[in-house]
Amino acid sequence: MILSEAELRPLAVAALQRRGVPDDSAALQADLLLEAELRGLASHGLLRLPRLISRLEKGLADPQARGSHDWRHSGFLQVDGERGLGPVVLMAALQTLAGRVGETGLALAAIRNANHIGMLAYYAEQAAARGLIGIVLSTSEALVHPFGGSRAMLGTNPIAIGIPTGAAPFVLDLATSVVSMGKIHSHALQGEPLSAGWAVDVTGQPTTDAEAAKSGAIAPFGDAKGYGLGLAFELLVASLCGSDLAPQVRGTLDDTHVANKGDLLILIDPGQRDGLARRLADYLDALRASPPARADRPVAIPGDGMRARRAATLKRGIDIPDSLLAQLQAL
Amino acid sequence: MILSEAELRPLAVAALQRRGVPDDSAALQADLLLEAELRGLASHGLLRLPRLISRLEKGLADPQARGSHDWRHSGFLQVDGERGLGPVVLMAALQTLAGRVGETGLALAAIRNANHIGMLAYYAEQAAARGLIGIVLSTSEALVHPFGGSRAMLGTNPIAIGIPTGAAPFVLDLATSVVSMGKIHSHALQGEPLSAGWAVDVTGQPTTDAEAAKSGAIAPFGDAKGYGLGLAFELLVASLCGSDLAPQVRGTLDDTHVANKGDLLILIDPGQRDGLARRLADYLDALRASPPARADRPVAIPGDGMRARRAATLKRGIDIPDSLLAQLQAL
Repeated sequence: MILSEAELRPLAVAALQRRGVPDDSAALQADLLLEAELRGLASHGLLRLPRLISRLEKGLADPQARGSHDWRHSGFLQVDGERGLGPVVLMAALQTLAGRVGETGLALAAIRNANHIGMLAYYAEQAAARGLIGIVLSTSEALVHPFGGSRAMLGTNPIAIGIPTGAAPFVLDLATSVVSMGKIHSHALQGEPLSAGWAVDVTGQPTTDAEAAKSGAIAPFGDAKGYGLGLAFELLVASLCGSDLAPQVRGTLDDTHVANKGDLLILIDPGQRDGLARRLADYLDALRASPPARADRPVAIPGDGMRARRAATLKRGIDIPDSLLAQLQAL
Repeated sequence: MILSEAELRPLAVAALQRRGVPDDSAALQADLLLEAELRGLASHGLLRLPRLISRLEKGLADPQARGSHDWRHSGFLQVDGERGLGPVVLMAALQTLAGRVGETGLALAAIRNANHIGMLAYYAEQAAARGLIGIVLSTSEALVHPFGGSRAMLGTNPIAIGIPTGAAPFVLDLATSVVSMGKIHSHALQGEPLSAGWAVDVTGQPTTDAEAAKSGAIAPFGDAKGYGLGLAFELLVASLCGSDLAPQVRGTLDDTHVANKGDLLILIDPGQRDGLARRLADYLDALRASPPARADRPVAIPGDGMRARRAATLKRGIDIPDSLLAQLQAL
């Protein structure tokens, strides 16, 4: 069924408020889920809400917590998320860092014990909207096999990077797996087969069955290099956040365990440089105008497609599976 | 001809000293080139020296400069490389940052106006040897086409990440192109064809001719995701260093222009956490022992191959093309 964003938002907000989530936190968590829906990223959208509600009801997520902040050094903020909602803990940390970078030039928040933070692009955009560069990393359960391996040993370890320009900010958001586990779940939900090369089953054999892949492993993107980056992010987050490594991580996909992954947020103040913002925007335009490999497909800049989908979905409405809508209404 | 590292080192050091490079700087620059040779990375090895010498003779590289340091914020070091040798400017910045991270927790050096810094892994290792996390980025001439594009618009934009563990440090070093331009040059030098999909020629058509690729463009690694990361690094370095964007960059491959690319170095103090270093090393061992896709090829950790090649080359000697050796002796 197709509903407008304005019709769906109150459903999500009310479901959270009814579990003791304060108004501002409920609005923020709902915004994360709806922004994912608007950008066509259903895997990070409202389908996450029923499990999140269950986590609140079981005490695995604390409706009120915003995280405790401890400056280990002048630019290094250690955050205990206190089981808070991911977006609430992240945005509180982002605010604190943004108040510090004027002095230090850059600052990071090393976060543990927060729930799933959802679509990383959201925070990179929030940074860029403040004129700051934002880099966001997050880890997950073991879902990805090493390059040349066959067992899930790494998280999907996404990264988002937001950079202010003279036009729309540059926003990159990608998992270091060839696809996100959210996409595997969404294929499983809709009974769609996976592309070849995306995944192996629990025995390590290649599969296109999304259900079989859920208990198997996803391939890293970009072969050895993508694997190397995913592994570097795994070690970086664990080193700084004191969070668990993928094989021990629980709590981002289930409603039975505390979330013990880590989230890392780095803000950098690029300062004011004459003409820089314009120069970046002009460069991105030159890329868009550069000769494409296929005449009918212009060169794209990361974030362009997302913005276009968002505008279209705002007009057309969000297509919600009936079963999910029924679940949301029951919440 | 095969020569030992101990035979080659004095050749490189003397060639630099004769152009007014102080002893310690000559030793450092030579070490960068020899370490690349030892790891089988000939593209970043001694073949770079004749051009570097020419740059010194023409005043494009200043033999004495170490870069001027300006703390824009307490964690943000702006470095004007003053046309210094890349390794000399980088290591001076690394020393300065290392003296600051005890206070700020993390610090970055945004460097412009330095010559080619060579193999990035070197600096990541130096950071890890000090118990610090090191992240190094560098940009270059336009050598890489966008995903879905056909014209060189981005640098090869490599990244290195070094992370201390309880065993050997984790060291990742990769270009965001599917291969480095150094490798294209080394194939051209040896008359070897390129793999399909690596490059396009100057008209944007796919080619396996290394000479044709030199005036064409290399593909990004990992399709859209690798392109996105390479582009993010391009914008990040230009934003922070005030350096030029790829289409305007000169001076890392030629001996006719001042080097106007940027280099970014970030150091982070991971602090002391009980058992963390051991936990990371154990995790890497578990990855190595995890079931491989092909029984005869165990899962590898980035850096393992490099260390093995280094040990073997130290024993066996460095295989230097006769023409290059003659050039070195003439210098």
